[in-house]
Order: sequence, then C-alpha cells, then structure tokens
Amino acid sequence: MASHGSPLSGILVPHMVPLDDRGRINEEELARYACWLVDRGVHGLYPNGSTGEFTRFTVEERRRIVSIVCEAAAGRVPVVAGAAEANVAETIHACEHALEAGARAVAIVAPFYFKLSAESVYAYFREIARESPIDVTLYNIPMLASPIDVATVRRLAEECPRVIGIKDSSGDISNMQRLIAAVRPVRPEFAFFTGWDAALVAMLLAGCDGGVHATAGVVPEVTRAIYDDVQAGRLDAAFARQRQITDLLDIAFLGDDFPEGFRIAAGVRGFAMGESRQPATDAQRADRQRLAERIRAAIERCGIPV
Amino acid sequence: MASHGSPLSGILVPHMVPLDDRGRINEEELARYACWLVDRGVHGLYPNGSTGEFTRFTVEERRRIVSIVCEAAAGRVPVVAGAAEANVAETIHACEHALEAGARAVAIVAPFYFKLSAESVYAYFREIARESPIDVTLYNIPMLASPIDVATVRRLAEECPRVIGIKDSSGDISNMQRLIAAVRPVRPEFAFFTGWDAALVAMLLAGCDGGVHATAGVVPEVTRAIYDDVQAGRLDAAFARQRQITDLLDIAFLGDDFPEGFRIAAGVRGFAMGESRQPATDAQRADRQRLAERIRAAIERCGIPV
Amino acid sequence: MASHGSPLSGILVPHMVPLDDRGRINEEELARYACWLVDRGVHGLYPNGSTGEFTRFTVEERRRIVSIVCEAAAGRVPVVAGAAEANVAETIHACEHALEAGARAVAIVAPFYFKLSAESVYAYFREIARESPIDVTLYNIPMLASPIDVATVRRLAEECPRVIGIKDSSGDISNMQRLIAAVRPVRPEFAFFTGWDAALVAMLLAGCDGGVHATAGVVPEVTRAIYDDVQAGRLDAAFARQRQITDLLDIAFLGDDFPEGFRIAAGVRGFAMGESRQPATDAQRADRQRLAERIRAAIERCGIPV
Amino acid sequence: MASHGSPLSGILVPHMVPLDDRGRINEEELARYACWLVDRGVHGLYPNGSTGEFTRFTVEERRRIVSIVCEAAAGRVPVVAGAAEANVAETIHACEHALEAGARAVAIVAPFYFKLSAESVYAYFREIARESPIDVTLYNIPMLASPIDVATVRRLAEECPRVIGIKDSSGDISNMQRLIAAVRPVRPEFAFFTGWDAALVAMLLAGCDGGVHATAGVVPEVTRAIYDDVQAGRLDAAFARQRQITDLLDIAFLGDDFPEGFRIAAGVRGFAMGESRQPATDAQRADRQRLAERIRAAIERCGIPV
Repeated sequence: MASHGSPLSGILVPHMVPLDDRGRINEEELARYACWLVDRGVHGLYPNGSTGEFTRFTVEERRRIVSIVCEAAAGRVPVVAGAAEANVAETIHACEHALEAGARAVAIVAPFYFKLSAESVYAYFREIARESPIDVTLYNIPMLASPIDVATVRRLAEECPRVIGIKDSSGDISNMQRLIAAVRPVRPEFAFFTGWDAALVAMLLAGCDGGVHATAGVVPEVTRAIYDDVQAGRLDAAFARQRQITDLLDIAFLGDDFPEGFRIAAGVRGFAMGESRQPATDAQRADRQRLAERIRAAIERCGIPV
Repeated sequence: MASHGSPLSGILVPHMVPLDDRGRINEEELARYACWLVDRGVHGLYPNGSTGEFTRFTVEERRRIVSIVCEAAAGRVPVVAGAAEANVAETIHACEHALEAGARAVAIVAPFYFKLSAESVYAYFREIARESPIDVTLYNIPMLASPIDVATVRRLAEECPRVIGIKDSSGDISNMQRLIAAVRPVRPEFAFFTGWDAALVAMLLAGCDGGVHATAGVVPEVTRAIYDDVQAGRLDAAFARQRQITDLLDIAFLGDDFPEGFRIAAGVRGFAMGESRQPATDAQRADRQRLAERIRAAIERCGIPV
Repeated sequence: MASHGSPLSGILVPHMVPLDDRGRINEEELARYACWLVDRGVHGLYPNGSTGEFTRFTVEERRRIVSIVCEAAAGRVPVVAGAAEANVAETIHACEHALEAGARAVAIVAPFYFKLSAESVYAYFREIARESPIDVTLYNIPMLASPIDVATVRRLAEECPRVIGIKDSSGDISNMQRLIAAVRPVRPEFAFFTGWDAALVAMLLAGCDGGVHATAGVVPEVTRAIYDDVQAGRLDAAFARQRQITDLLDIAFLGDDFPEGFRIAAGVRGFAMGESRQPATDAQRADRQRLAERIRAAIERCGIPV
Repeated sequence: MASHGSPLSGILVPHMVPLDDRGRINEEELARYACWLVDRGVHGLYPNGSTGEFTRFTVEERRRIVSIVCEAAAGRVPVVAGAAEANVAETIHACEHALEAGARAVAIVAPFYFKLSAESVYAYFREIARESPIDVTLYNIPMLASPIDVATVRRLAEECPRVIGIKDSSGDISNMQRLIAAVRPVRPEFAFFTGWDAALVAMLLAGCDGGVHATAGVVPEVTRAIYDDVQAGRLDAAFARQRQITDLLDIAFLGDDFPEGFRIAAGVRGFAMGESRQPATDAQRADRQRLAERIRAAIERCGIPV
C-alpha cells in the first residue's frame, strides 16, 4: 500500500470501467486495464471520476470498483478514489471503505444537480473533512457541478488538514494560478492537479503538480512522457506531445456524449469495454463505429500502432 | 388506489421531506404533511421531485418516501413518484416499487450530471418506457438536467404509450405552447404540467393541464384556488393570487440555496422539517432565521395567518 | 402627427429596412413598406429596432430612416424611434431629431457590447431621461444587451416622468408579471410591451399593453388580429393564430442569423429588400433560397396567399 | 513610421482615452499618455480596443484617437488601430484612414450585438480583408462579440494574405494552442496575441507572439518585463510578475464595470482621465474613490511607487 502522507503528483488516470454483455462490471477486464495503466507508467489511479461514469453505478458497485483497482494497483501507485455519495453521511461511509480498500485518498466532487452557493460548498467539504478517516481531495468541475471558488479552496486548505489537494477541470489557467497563489503560502504541500487534458503542459509550467486526464486512460505512455518532458525542461517535446493529446481529446470529447468517446478509445486499445449503461439508438451505434476509426487514427498519430 | 389510466391534471405537490434530529426521514411528520396537503385540496402528490431533494436520499429512502406518501394519500389523490436512479436497470426497479406502493405514475428526470444530446435523452426515455410496468411522466428541468426538447417529447409521445405526460420546469411559455402544439395532435390525452410557479396562470391559459409547484407545498390553498379560478374564468382573481405565489416563490427561491427556502417555508406552516442534509455554516443558520420571517410575512400576504 | 401624451398600446412593428443594389437605404421602398404596414392595421411603427439592424447603419442613416417612417406614418399611427447612439450626448441629439421628425417617443436599448451592472444601467437611462426632449421607452433585450432588471425599471419609473414604457424581449412571462406588479402601482399609465412574438397572447392576458414583433413586419394582419382577438375575449382564436405566428417566427429566427430571416420574409411579401449589409457566402445565399420557400409556406399557413 | 510588413510581437497596449471636463477627448493628455507608454517599453499601441471604450466614441473621434496615437508613437513602435465600424463599407473607410495616419495594421473585432454564425463571421472578415488597404488583425472576444472559431481563423489565414494575426481575449489556453496548431503550418508568420492578462506567461510559453493587455496601460514596465523574462527563460521571475499583474487585473476588472477600473488605474499613474462617458451614480463615485486606493496598493505591490 502506498504510504499515507506522501504528497500526490504526476499523472493520475480517471479510468473507464469495462462492462460485460449484461451490463455488469467486467471485473477481470477492469483489473487487467488497471494493471496495464500502471505498467505504462501512470503515477496513480483515480476510480469513480467523471470519465469513470461514477453516477451510473450503484453505491455497492462504486465500492467494488475501488476495491478492484486498489488490488490491481497493489501499492505500486496510489489510488485516489471517487467517494461522493448522496449526502455527507453516505460519503463518509464511502471514505471508510476507500481507506479499508487501500486508497491513498478520496476525491469528492462538489455538490451537483443543485447549484450551491460558495458558502454551502464550503460547509459541505468542511463537514466531510471533519469526519473523513482518509485524506480528501477536492474535485472542481464547474461544467457539471457547483463551482469551488478560489476563496473556498483557500478557506478549506487553511482550516482542514484532511484536505490535501484539488483537481480542477475548468481548464482555466488563470484560475489555476490564482488557486496556487492563494493556497501555497498557507499549505505548501497542497497538491494541484488539472483535469483538462488540453492544458496539461501549460498547467505544469504554471505550477501544477500533475494532471488527472481521461486521455491518460487511452495513451498513458504519451501523458506520462509529457510529464517527464516538462520535468526535464524539454518544452518543445512536451508541446509536441500536447498537440497529440489535444487532437485525441477533441475527437473523443466532441465525437460523442462524454465520456462515451473515451470508452470507445479504451476499446481501440484492446479492452473489452462493452456497451454503455446509457442507452443508444442505432444511429448512435453506427456513429460510434466511425468514431472508433477516427480515434484509432489519432492514437496512431501519437506513434502508437493499434 | 387511484385508478390507473385516468388522465392527470391539476395541482401536484413536489413536497419537501421532514427530517428528524438525526437527519433521518421523520416518517410520521411526512405522513402528517402529505395528509395536510391532500386536505387542502391539491390534486396529487409528487414525491422525490427536486424540491423533495431526491438526490440527497439513498435508493432505499426514496422508496420509503414513496411508500409513506402513497399510504397517506390512500387513494384520495394520485401519486406521481420520482423514480430516476443511477441507470435504466435501477430505475426500472424503482418503477416496480412505485407500482407496488400504489403510485399512479412515475416521474423521470432527464439524465443529469452528464449533459446528454437529444438523441441520448430520447434513447434513455425510450428504454425506460419499454421496460416500465407503470406509466411514465417526463421531467424537463433544463437548469439542472439535460434538456428534453420539443422534437424528443413528440418522438417519445408517438412511440411510447407508457409516456403519458411531461412536467416542464423551464418557465418558458413559448416552449410550452410549442410542446402542446407538437404533441396534442398525436396524443390528445398527453398531460402537460408546468413546474414554474410564477407562470402558472399563463401556462393554464395557454393549455397546460396543471402545475407541479414547490409553493403548493407551502400554501396549497392558494395554488388550488388559482387552478379553480382559471377553470371558472375568474382571470383577475387568478392573476391576483399569482402575484402572491410569485412573491412567495421569489423570497423562498432567492433567499437560500434551492430548495432550502421551501423547507423553511413548510416549517413556518407548522411542520417539523429538521436541519437539511446539506451542511450549513453559522452564518447561513442566522440568515435562515431572517428568511423564515420574510416567508412568514409572504404567507400572511396570501391571507393565511401563520 | 400622433398627439403627444397619449398612452402607447397595441402592435408596434420593428420593421426591416429595404436596401438598393448598392447597399444604400431604398427610401421609396421603405416608405411604401411603412405605408403597407399601417394599411394592414398595426398600431405603430418602431424604426431602428434590432430587427431593423440599427447597428449596421450610420448615425445619419438612422435619422433618415426615422424621418422617412414618420413621414409615411403621417400621423395615422405613432412612431417609436430607436435613438440609442454611442453615448448619452449623441443619444440626446438623436432624441432631438426624433422629436423634430414627428416621433411619439424614442426607444433606447440598454447599453450593449459592455455588460453593465444594474447601477450603471440605471445611471445611463436616468441621464437620458433628464435630457431628452421626447418621451423615452426602455428596451430590454438581455440576449444582446445589458439586462434592465425589475428594480431598475421601478426606480426609473418612479423618478423619471419622461420614461413612459418598456419593451421586454426576454419572452419571460414571469418577469413581465413581476415588472407590471412593481411599476403599475406607482405609474398606472406606464406601457408594457413584449418583444417575444411566441408569447404574445399569454403576455397580453398577463397584462401587457401590446407587442413589438418582427413577425408583425411580415404578417401584420395576423398580429393585429391576435390583439383584437384578445381584446374581445376570443382566446381560442387568439391561441390558434399564436401558433401560426410562432411557426413563422421559428422558421425565420432559426433559419438564418437574426434578423436576416425577417428581411427574407418581407421579400416574400413583395418588398425589394436587397442584399444585407452583413456579407454572405455562396453557401448562405443558396440556403436563403430554400429558407424563402419555407417562409412562403408558413405565411400561406397563416391564410395569406403569397 | 513603422515599416510595413514586419511581423508583430511583444506587448501592445489597448490604452484608455483621457477625457476633459466636458467629456471630450483630452488630446494633449492622450498624446502624453501614449508617449509615456512607449517610453516605458511597450512594443506597440492598440487604440480603439475594448479597454479604449471604442463603442463610446463617434466615428470621427475614433479616427482622431488613431491620428493622435500614431503621431505620438512617431514610428518608434507600431500602431494597431481598432477600425471596426457599423458595416463593411464604413470599416473600409476607417482602414483607409488608419493607413494614412501611419498605423501598422488595423484590429477588427468580430461582429457584436448580433451573435453571428461561424459562416457569417468568415464572410464578414473575408470581405474586409479583400477591400482593406492595410493589414488586418482579427479580434476575438467571445464574452462581448461573436466568437471567431479555430476553423474560421484557419480559413481566413489560408485565403486572405491581408489577415496577419489575431488577438484572442478568451483566456483559453487550450484554444490558443489549437489556433496555433491550425494556422502556423499554413502561415508561419501569422501573429498570435493573447488579450487575457492573467494568462500572459503561460500563453507566451505555449507559443504566443505577445499580448494586448489593459494592465500594460497601467504598469507597462511590469508587462514588458514579463515578456523579456520569458524570452530570456527566467520563468520564476516571469511567474512572480504574472501574479502581480493578475492581482492588479482582478482588482481593476472586478472592482467596477469594465473598463472603468483601468481608467481609474491610469489616473493613479498620474494621468487626467476625466469622468467616463458612461454616467455614474453618487454611490458609484464613492466606490471609485475606494477602488483607486486598492489599485494604488496593487501598483505598489508591483514595486512601483505611486
């Protein structure tokens, strides 16, 4: 098990979940996929993220996913497990499970469906941070959930030692710099991850500790190489690979309702992803055949034969 | 039990859920509240709506709420039970439960968190309509969930006899008229409900069959009277009461993060609502005291001493 | 000339402007068009509205348009002339011109390009109202310009006798009712016009004095008939005609970049509108041929052979 | 006069315009301000930008501003003159004037007020590019005007040699990288400027040629130093200064309706900016006193005593 307390950094994968022909979690394939990701150099796994369609699974399934992924990771890389449930009490139960399963931390998305004020978002995370037996990372994805603004992150960072980092999927580099400027002086070890693949290099240059990227579930080799390039100061190489990632992202993200394009892409890499739990029409199934071919070409443009 | 097959109309209440001091459903108070609403003339109950904070309960709790409300209604009014769960299979289980509990129909909100295309929204409801053992009503709330557009409603109305109506909470009267014009020719008995309290009179005049209104959970007498006024052609009286309802709505809706203002308002009417499952700060609690007073005044302006 | 001081009501036309083959105002055709509209029963003319593409003309052209339209109206109907210019001083010059030309009032759109706060919007209109020698109507079109909120309208209505009415193009019937409820008690003669064609009947029922509608520039007979139907209590007929208007609106509004569809539609009614000042590609020109045919069919569905 | 044909790069200033006590352009102060900016190292001047409130001046005033600024620049730095007018023909007249006045290029904002499709935006710029006697830069500011998307920029870059660059004020670093990746292969010398001050360093690292920044009109020394830092590879220093700029931006941008905060800031630097043409209330005037003090402190945090 990854030692608790070590700071998080690098490329984490909000991976997709293979399903069998009855729509159940394909547990073996999920374990094989998680191992494959670790073998290709990602720094951590991030089950039950948005790309992992956490909202389409039951409470029990989300726990099962965490258990399988922790077992597959086998301490080689940390697991940051999505643990947001219907309310704080349920979320704390999920946190307890994540701890038992061996996760390094949990990721808690801001309240969604209802759009909450900054004060309510603060109260929500404060309560979770007080009760959680495991480190907590915030997950800001303002396109889908209530926004977590800079002042709220600062407030939580100051008051809650359990809150150790944030994933921000807005892709707003100015906001990321504001976040870092607001929090680092009071919590130097607080970890900042971008969730917007197309901005990874710039975010790392601006001070992010890493990225949590759907494309890392498709071409983990490339995302990892970007991280290493930036660490080593090879900016031209990093930006060249960034263009490949963005190309893949744009095709997978715009080509179907998110996150279906990424499930298709994992299929192109050789995993038996099965049909989505979100029903599809025949017209959509035909489109997906074509999308798979476009994704295949984008992966090959990354220098990966598929 | 309300007879199946009778068309839905009138004022349905997307009521709030009383909690006890440990945050559990206060079952007795919920039953008392449901009976009180029926006694004050509402035409139906709509548990597990947005105002009912359906996302903050567990699967089991949502079922329990439906059971309690159906029992309280005791066949006097129909119950339209919110039954959307994590995915289609889980939703169908909830539909089966609603049927057993004695609900007249279920209400299924469009997929949320992920913003889906019209084609996916169609596929989602088609699948549910195919499998559901109970009549289905669509729930369009584009501020919070994927939009269900006019063409999609028409398509579902044409293809799915199980789909018998829609609640549209957009408050867009032009869109409601487009919906009615598109669907009535192919499904004359299809029921149209507005979910935007401030537009109720205009929506009824434009052809809606009724309304599903949070304010009906606070001043059911007034909302019912509006419906009767419009039926009887007393437009001046209807619009006068509309102003009272809108006044109350604006205070409760803008005074706190939705739907907390409505929980507070039910408290003003004498129900023990308890503290919300969404945590609050001390500053928010103080604000809520003041909001309760403003709500009390608005209820009194409706001619109801509280 | 229409007597100053008489309240405004009924159907006003924010008409389009015919251009010649060199892109200049086709003055004769504009006069012929304005007369044609008056002959078909509209209650007033509203030059330099959004549908009239006021932003695409020069200061001098906007004045020329007002002069031509006032002359064509010849006192038979009032003219409400769009007079917003680059700043307050320039706007006042345009107001002076409108008075001299014989307009009944001016219409001033809220500041656009920059999105201003409510306080700035208030300050802007207050300054114009203080200096204008002619009655002023507010023009709220939040899709395109800074919003004018209910509190601001109330404040202006209370403080500025020169401000005599508002056109609200939001199509939000709840907001219109809030506006009326806020202003009528302090200014009973203040005029409320909706600018959203698809909501006309409902808006009139909710208390509006009239509408300012692009479709009235295409099928003035129908828009006028709707107004008369509502006045006479023929709601079924009014809503039936509303469907025709909405059908035409949707085709013209969605069929091309606004307001080009309405220029095309005026062409279908027999006016030589010329090519728009906004350049087009060949692909767009081909689309416009097809759009004209769809508009022709929609006009014929209104019972008007074209 | 700056030699035509040389590529644009570095820090351009979309400067504000001093007004006298009657609201007229304070020509002497404008010239003094422009010279001051050049003396402090900016690489170019950008009159009639959004920060320059171009919409609040008349056609003649916009030309006068360009003439004064070109004269003040005196060939020491290039001038990129805002030249968008009511329509293409008027815009071309403004382009001709800019050429005569000695500008290096014009900047044309995408059509605003009306929200146009990508095809219309393309047609608009293509027509201007065909007719303009001076090089054209595109100005994308999707918060205020129709967006210019990546495909449209590529299409214009390929077809229109007159179009030599773009200023993108979206602040979206992913989009900027997409733009550069799409255009550089076909037009290697095409110039990319960011207009979002808070992203300057990251944008330069990602391949931008420079920035057009309101804060450069307040602390030109710092903005210029950032550019030099990045050129020299001093990233830590660049990001440290970025924080100062962002701090100033946030205060000036959020402290009042844009761009008033920047006019106030230029006043703090010693220029007689006068009262805005946008009227203000007494409450706003009092707020501006306080804002000036906050801006003063932010400028001093940049190491500049004021």
